[in-house]
Amino acid sequence: MAKQKPRTLAGFMELLPAQQQQMERIMETLRRTYSLYGFTPLDTPIIEDAQVLLAKGGGETEKQIYRFQKGDSDLALRFDLTVPLAKYVALHYGQLSFPFRRYQIGKVYRGERPQKGRYREFYQADIDIIGDGKLDIANEAEIPSIIYQTFSQLGLKRFQIRVNNRKILNGFYEMLGLTDQSQDVMRTVDKLDKIGPDAVRDILVDDLGVAADKAGEVLDFIAIKGDTSAVLAALEGYRGRSQVFDQGLDELTAVTKYLSAFGVPEEAFAVDLTIARGLDYYTGTVYETTLLDHPEVGSVCSGGRYDNLAGYYTDKPLPGVGISIGLTRLFYVLDDQKMLNPASPTAPAEVLVIPMSAGQQGYAISVATRLRGQGIRTQLYTEQKKFKAKISYAAKLGIPYAMFLGEDEEKAGVMSLKDLAKGEQVTVSFDEAVGIIKGYLAEMEQIPSVLG
Amino acid sequence: MAKQKPRTLAGFMELLPAQQQQMERIMETLRRTYSLYGFTPLDTPIIEDAQVLLAKGGGETEKQIYRFQKGDSDLALRFDLTVPLAKYVALHYGQLSFPFRRYQIGKVYRGERPQKGRYREFYQADIDIIGDGKLDIANEAEIPSIIYQTFSQLGLKRFQIRVNNRKILNGFYEMLGLTDQSQDVMRTVDKLDKIGPDAVRDILVDDLGVAADKAGEVLDFIAIKGDTSAVLAALEGYRGRSQVFDQGLDELTAVTKYLSAFGVPEEAFAVDLTIARGLDYYTGTVYETTLLDHPEVGSVCSGGRYDNLAGYYTDKPLPGVGISIGLTRLFYVLDDQKMLNPASPTAPAEVLVIPMSAGQQGYAISVATRLRGQGIRTQLYTEQKKFKAKISYAAKLGIPYAMFLGEDEEKAGVMSLKDLAKGEQVTVSFDEAVGIIKGYLAEMEQIPSVLG
Repeated sequence: MAKQKPRTLAGFMELLPAQQQQMERIMETLRRTYSLYGFTPLDTPIIEDAQVLLAKGGGETEKQIYRFQKGDSDLALRFDLTVPLAKYVALHYGQLSFPFRRYQIGKVYRGERPQKGRYREFYQADIDIIGDGKLDIANEAEIPSIIYQTFSQLGLKRFQIRVNNRKILNGFYEMLGLTDQSQDVMRTVDKLDKIGPDAVRDILVDDLGVAADKAGEVLDFIAIKGDTSAVLAALEGYRGRSQVFDQGLDELTAVTKYLSAFGVPEEAFAVDLTIARGLDYYTGTVYETTLLDHPEVGSVCSGGRYDNLAGYYTDKPLPGVGISIGLTRLFYVLDDQKMLNPASPTAPAEVLVIPMSAGQQGYAISVATRLRGQGIRTQLYTEQKKFKAKISYAAKLGIPYAMFLGEDEEKAGVMSLKDLAKGEQVTVSFDEAVGIIKGYLAEMEQIPSVLG
Repeated sequence: MAKQKPRTLAGFMELLPAQQQQMERIMETLRRTYSLYGFTPLDTPIIEDAQVLLAKGGGETEKQIYRFQKGDSDLALRFDLTVPLAKYVALHYGQLSFPFRRYQIGKVYRGERPQKGRYREFYQADIDIIGDGKLDIANEAEIPSIIYQTFSQLGLKRFQIRVNNRKILNGFYEMLGLTDQSQDVMRTVDKLDKIGPDAVRDILVDDLGVAADKAGEVLDFIAIKGDTSAVLAALEGYRGRSQVFDQGLDELTAVTKYLSAFGVPEEAFAVDLTIARGLDYYTGTVYETTLLDHPEVGSVCSGGRYDNLAGYYTDKPLPGVGISIGLTRLFYVLDDQKMLNPASPTAPAEVLVIPMSAGQQGYAISVATRLRGQGIRTQLYTEQKKFKAKISYAAKLGIPYAMFLGEDEEKAGVMSLKDLAKGEQVTVSFDEAVGIIKGYLAEMEQIPSVLG
């Protein structure tokens, strides 16, 4: 028979088993942490009606979308989890209770040009809190505190959640009479890190026609840096010149105050006035999260407050706040930067149960069944291979214990348990074996997935 | 702005939050049970190269497939998890250890005509054990024991795993000289339950030209029923007439013997000689699982032993054994038959923390943070609503406890904890509150997802 060469499409992540175990552990941490904060899991279809999915329209996205016909239907694959959330809330509005808190971890699709670390199929892990008409400012502090908790649980240490408020930016540009140009100005200011302040000033003045003194004010403003209290103090100096600005400053002050009540240490967050977020629907607090040792990666977790989640589906005002982790990309970065903890267990089982000959098959099966009853992940090895091949199988998979069951063990109702890392072997009762393996498990639980 | 009517496509399951919690709990049970048996989780792309995915060809499947162009690429959505597994094993062969045991829970796509209980996007939950050239018969007993354990963990009681062996069927038809017609005969025999033995005999004789005495033997054979030892004893009567049959009988005898060592009680399985499974690649043991009180639903979990997983990708012989739960359909059936346990918790949190006024916001945040530190799922309610609205929010979501934090509570460092089901309220210390809620959690852990 002619063979088809097996291959996986470029831009689609497919992990080997050990890596996949790491990924699963990270996902499990996300699910557990999101649940701790009272978010309910949601699952929406990957395929949606293209008209529904693209109701908002929008240039870049539409070009990248996977869209196709099936029969008479015009279909598209979701490109984020926000539009499906908007659809979900608008569609099931009457059956939901607000504030509606959901998390969703799912694959999304964008037909980008494949390149290193960029994927066409990738996981997003989103949390959002949606209010019915109103939403308290405390939620805007809770969201980054969840991200702090999530990243800490993974083992990450050197990260920073950067916070800003769109009202402060909008109010500031209002003060300068630059409201109409604010999008262009912000896009220019965004290049600060890459091109430096002088080049930014030149573009503002020469290309955008901003008066020189106003351009100077813009550069002074985005140069405000320091710890939270210093930045807030500097911002107080602008108070009274714009209602919008003042409201933004009140919100930012409240958010930073609550953050510490939420247990987020000062060094894990910073007010950063250069953060604006591209999406035009953010209206209040905005977030970005950077790995301090890898600034080149950019933000690994972003989001913010919006006033109108589902305006293209419903007249109901649905304000919300949310944040999204680009999980596939984050995993790629952690792996690429050697930050995945090599000590984190990746084996499919804690113990490999090996009958020494066909005569012990029944005994081995019943011991394996009892181990599983104790919650111990157990693999049974019944293949007729050489002893060495069996041990090498366990070693290759990183299974920490091998259990040998021969005629003597069966007669005495005991088991020979070998710690494959230490090379030590003991003959013990079932209960003793369980105790040893559970001790190992307790140690492993302390090992974080990621090296921070 | 003109509104787009939000909708979800027909044939795509989208659950409300409480149902989704049930589904998540079921998935978590599957992941945990599969892991206990030493299966490693796998995740493969939903989109594959159409040439790769359809390498095997095949009529029915190809018609139902979602296939489309993106740029120059001919793409298709996976329609099961078996073909992606074959691709994965062939592609990564050199980096895998065999026997390779993987589980995968993921969405697959078939453009079937949507009808009640049939989905175009649905989850499959698969386990497979792949050998490199050989695979021990014990694996064919382990697979149904995992299904027994999984269903039992869910709470299901009245189900039966039915087992047969293709070699027994093939050997039997060989004895009768009906090998060339065996596919047609088996297809006819499959209709037994629907049309009765006389109609089956008529088709065999009139349409397929089977001699009357042989048709009688076929009907006698598939009428063999009873407990395992009775069926095996009846089958022994055919021994010595076909090597293939004898091998199949040896295998079936071994499988049924091991099943009890694996802890599967006699009443949970049966040998059923009418089971053949449609797919032509099964070569040994085959399985179907039926809900005893809902035979009309058909098999909710099927699979079997195959000799050649990836013959269209590689020359390497890769025998295996696997089974698949059609999870979305199973969930639909459980819901439709009112078998989802209404006592199973569906709330997004164990406790709703409510500051009585804005002054207690900080206290409420720090109490919520401490509760989460104790592993208690906690939702913070900071909206400025009437007291009644806050309580009704908790009740609607099924959150079992509300915690009220007023000025008095803050001063004394205590909390008022209300059991919303019983209507009882107590004022307690933080540790006491944690104790009460953890007591509730321990009770909830005993509650199965499903009513068996």
